[in-house]
Amino acid sequence: MMVDGVLEGDPDVWITHPSKIEQGEAGSICFLGNPKYEDYLYQSRASAVLVSKAFVPREKISPTLIRVEDVYLTVGKLLHLFNGQDEFTERIDPSAVIDADARIEHPVIIGPHSIVSAGCSVGKGCRIHGQVYLGPDVTIGERVILYPGVKIYHGCVIGDDCTLHSNVVIGSDGFGFSKDEKGEYQKIPQLGNVEIGNKVEIGANTTIDRGTMGSTKIGNGCKLDNLIQIAHNVTLGDNTVIAAQAGIAGSSHIGANCQIGGQVGIAGHLTVADGTRIQGQSGVASSLEAVGGKWYGSPAIEYFAFLRSFAEFKALPSLAKRLRALEDRFKN
Amino acid sequence: MMVDGVLEGDPDVWITHPSKIEQGEAGSICFLGNPKYEDYLYQSRASAVLVSKAFVPREKISPTLIRVEDVYLTVGKLLHLFNGQDEFTERIDPSAVIDADARIEHPVIIGPHSIVSAGCSVGKGCRIHGQVYLGPDVTIGERVILYPGVKIYHGCVIGDDCTLHSNVVIGSDGFGFSKDEKGEYQKIPQLGNVEIGNKVEIGANTTIDRGTMGSTKIGNGCKLDNLIQIAHNVTLGDNTVIAAQAGIAGSSHIGANCQIGGQVGIAGHLTVADGTRIQGQSGVASSLEAVGGKWYGSPAIEYFAFLRSFAEFKALPSLAKRLRALEDRFKN
Amino acid sequence: MMVDGVLEGDPDVWITHPSKIEQGEAGSICFLGNPKYEDYLYQSRASAVLVSKAFVPREKISPTLIRVEDVYLTVGKLLHLFNGQDEFTERIDPSAVIDADARIEHPVIIGPHSIVSAGCSVGKGCRIHGQVYLGPDVTIGERVILYPGVKIYHGCVIGDDCTLHSNVVIGSDGFGFSKDEKGEYQKIPQLGNVEIGNKVEIGANTTIDRGTMGSTKIGNGCKLDNLIQIAHNVTLGDNTVIAAQAGIAGSSHIGANCQIGGQVGIAGHLTVADGTRIQGQSGVASSLEAVGGKWYGSPAIEYFAFLRSFAEFKALPSLAKRLRALEDRFKN
Repeated sequence: MMVDGVLEGDPDVWITHPSKIEQGEAGSICFLGNPKYEDYLYQSRASAVLVSKAFVPREKISPTLIRVEDVYLTVGKLLHLFNGQDEFTERIDPSAVIDADARIEHPVIIGPHSIVSAGCSVGKGCRIHGQVYLGPDVTIGERVILYPGVKIYHGCVIGDDCTLHSNVVIGSDGFGFSKDEKGEYQKIPQLGNVEIGNKVEIGANTTIDRGTMGSTKIGNGCKLDNLIQIAHNVTLGDNTVIAAQAGIAGSSHIGANCQIGGQVGIAGHLTVADGTRIQGQSGVASSLEAVGGKWYGSPAIEYFAFLRSFAEFKALPSLAKRLRALEDRFKN
Repeated sequence: MMVDGVLEGDPDVWITHPSKIEQGEAGSICFLGNPKYEDYLYQSRASAVLVSKAFVPREKISPTLIRVEDVYLTVGKLLHLFNGQDEFTERIDPSAVIDADARIEHPVIIGPHSIVSAGCSVGKGCRIHGQVYLGPDVTIGERVILYPGVKIYHGCVIGDDCTLHSNVVIGSDGFGFSKDEKGEYQKIPQLGNVEIGNKVEIGANTTIDRGTMGSTKIGNGCKLDNLIQIAHNVTLGDNTVIAAQAGIAGSSHIGANCQIGGQVGIAGHLTVADGTRIQGQSGVASSLEAVGGKWYGSPAIEYFAFLRSFAEFKALPSLAKRLRALEDRFKN
Repeated sequence: MMVDGVLEGDPDVWITHPSKIEQGEAGSICFLGNPKYEDYLYQSRASAVLVSKAFVPREKISPTLIRVEDVYLTVGKLLHLFNGQDEFTERIDPSAVIDADARIEHPVIIGPHSIVSAGCSVGKGCRIHGQVYLGPDVTIGERVILYPGVKIYHGCVIGDDCTLHSNVVIGSDGFGFSKDEKGEYQKIPQLGNVEIGNKVEIGANTTIDRGTMGSTKIGNGCKLDNLIQIAHNVTLGDNTVIAAQAGIAGSSHIGANCQIGGQVGIAGHLTVADGTRIQGQSGVASSLEAVGGKWYGSPAIEYFAFLRSFAEFKALPSLAKRLRALEDRFKN
């Protein structure tokens, strides 16, 4: 059997493809990860369902159950199997503009209308889709996937096994200006670059600015969702994940293994400890030193403290009435 | 007459072009939609002004008044008339890279440096501007407009009469990872696609992720503004409108005819009822079951409840002082 | 000496390149702008450090000190010197598609796979990188830099000395729809354009919609960060700066010299006075008339009023307990 789990029901069930639990049909395997979807399980026509070892069904179930340690992890492995390994055959489109001074290791795929500038280095096994731009002296590791429209400015460095989705921009100028005598803003040249580690995935239309001096750094194994802003000289520790539309201002240092929610904003020149979790839409205005701390609100405070205060916020009108009543009683 | 309305003033007024009420000059027609702009009306040099049937001017007005049922709807029709119908003549730029296995119905426009991959199907009357990417097996309906830089990943489906603005990304991978034994994130392959209905408009740089399994679905007549994030397996009911920079997390189901304000965030795995209205910057942390409900705040609560609580929030310092005063009075 | 300042220490120190104060090595010059970094100064191995005239070191310092009036301004000048002037030699890539009816002044750089449509006018000294799109009748001033992937729709106007970063979209349709009898949204044609002044910089993936009628206007010297949304018919006064991911809704008028924080949202049809400062993540729901006012919160109130109310918000649970205690004491 392909996955390591305990089987309940027909062991000879024939499975041809994965499905969602809401849509499972005969021949498919689905999974129950989030308890919210348990009800679907009892109507599911899927042939097999992955569930956690601990799961206790409320009702009788027709599909074969496969009990596993970690449902999501197993799903990942399964989907890879169904996904299969697509073949990799060298293919460089004639419309791509590749400078003679670029070093390309083979095999490689470079799609139509892409640009690889002088001094670039591209490792073997890279899939550079169409309409990608690599500026001068960009370094790309091995087995990197760049989807159509990715733009990487001069001098930036991407590690191995990274995936950048469409229209990601790496190495654009940091937002650095100084007000002059006349109250006009003069540009501070942005001379640094961006360095991205290994196994990093970056979502569509996310932007990462280059350092003013030195590098903006994204650690190994970081996962960034879509439409995120990472400003100049920010550093992210390894395996930190950031949800969509979050933004981190200049020169802030984020630890490893952090979980940053969607639309979170982090001000500049701050430090965020390892393992920090920040609830979506929170605004971080000062450094978060507590390792593994959890934060919520704008400005953000300790997670449960926020929940307690917000519960009272909802009750404020009645609280105000009660205070007024006491005051009236002791008017005289 | 081109529009259905009641005319007050010179019926023979000659109109050559539309104008804004702040800038109206002779020969132009402007409109009064938002009462905030009424003052401009009395200085306007426009030859005609569209107003609502109900409108009662405070002062004397020189331009000819045209009273209509729905000002904005009439403006739309008028502007279409001024806009005219631009001719449609087939034009496929030689620099476009079109796979031999793509099915293209004619007439069609395909601009420079665009890519149409194998297995694509493009309906008649489509205007595919330059630098557009259509991945393998993408299906585009009829009369669809794709502005420069649009990227559509493999297997996604776009209905008829849709408009996608520049640098929109459709079908990028959902943000799906599972933590392994070593605390590193392993990618969950994203095997689904995106299905977009008819008459959908999507603003510049908006991103819509493909389903992990199954489809991310955008209903007929939905209108999405710029820089919006729609995560994997989200569904939007028909005629739901979303303002700029809003984000909807994975597997949430949004009803029909909803109005979602700018920078709103909606957490994952939630249900939002038909006709729901959400105030800008609100954060939706739990399902909104009330049909036609109105919500505000982060986390969002009922709209008027939020306004009442926020009024007290502004008064909190004085409220705290008053409580302290009572306490002092009854000390010992 | 290249910069105007007072020198303390070895006047013959030899400087070859700039460095960050955390990383300064022999031969480099770094700067102390933000006091938070003062500690680094005392371990720095940099040969020279720029500090403000007023700076008083707590400890002994090895690098040569250069005292200047405005550290950031001086850094800007210095970096320009190190950056050097890159030569400008005409270079038009053969893969660029340039309409015969476009007016191009020379010298100019136009990169691979770019599109310059009929009726365009491009001033001398422009650097149009690869994969840029200029729609029909676009006007670009002199010495403008357009990074790869910039898309500018028909009829838009860019002033002199502007810089637009990758995947910026200028002139996409405003978000204008009117509900018809059937509850479906009909598009209001967007007939206006975008006019951008001189010395404007616009960050990666920022979007600026065209006016419905008339123009969306960005004043001279404005600086916009990444992923910002500017809606139809918005106007920005001169030298206003906006941080990343902020959004301004339709027809709002922002004054000159404003500072708008990251992720700020400003509703439509509002007026914001000159010199207004808005704290990050704030939501502006009504016009801000006070010149030089400072605002915070969602919805935004006066900056210090917000801080006072938020301090009480954090204390709400104990405040509620204290009220309950008083009530209990006076029960019956």
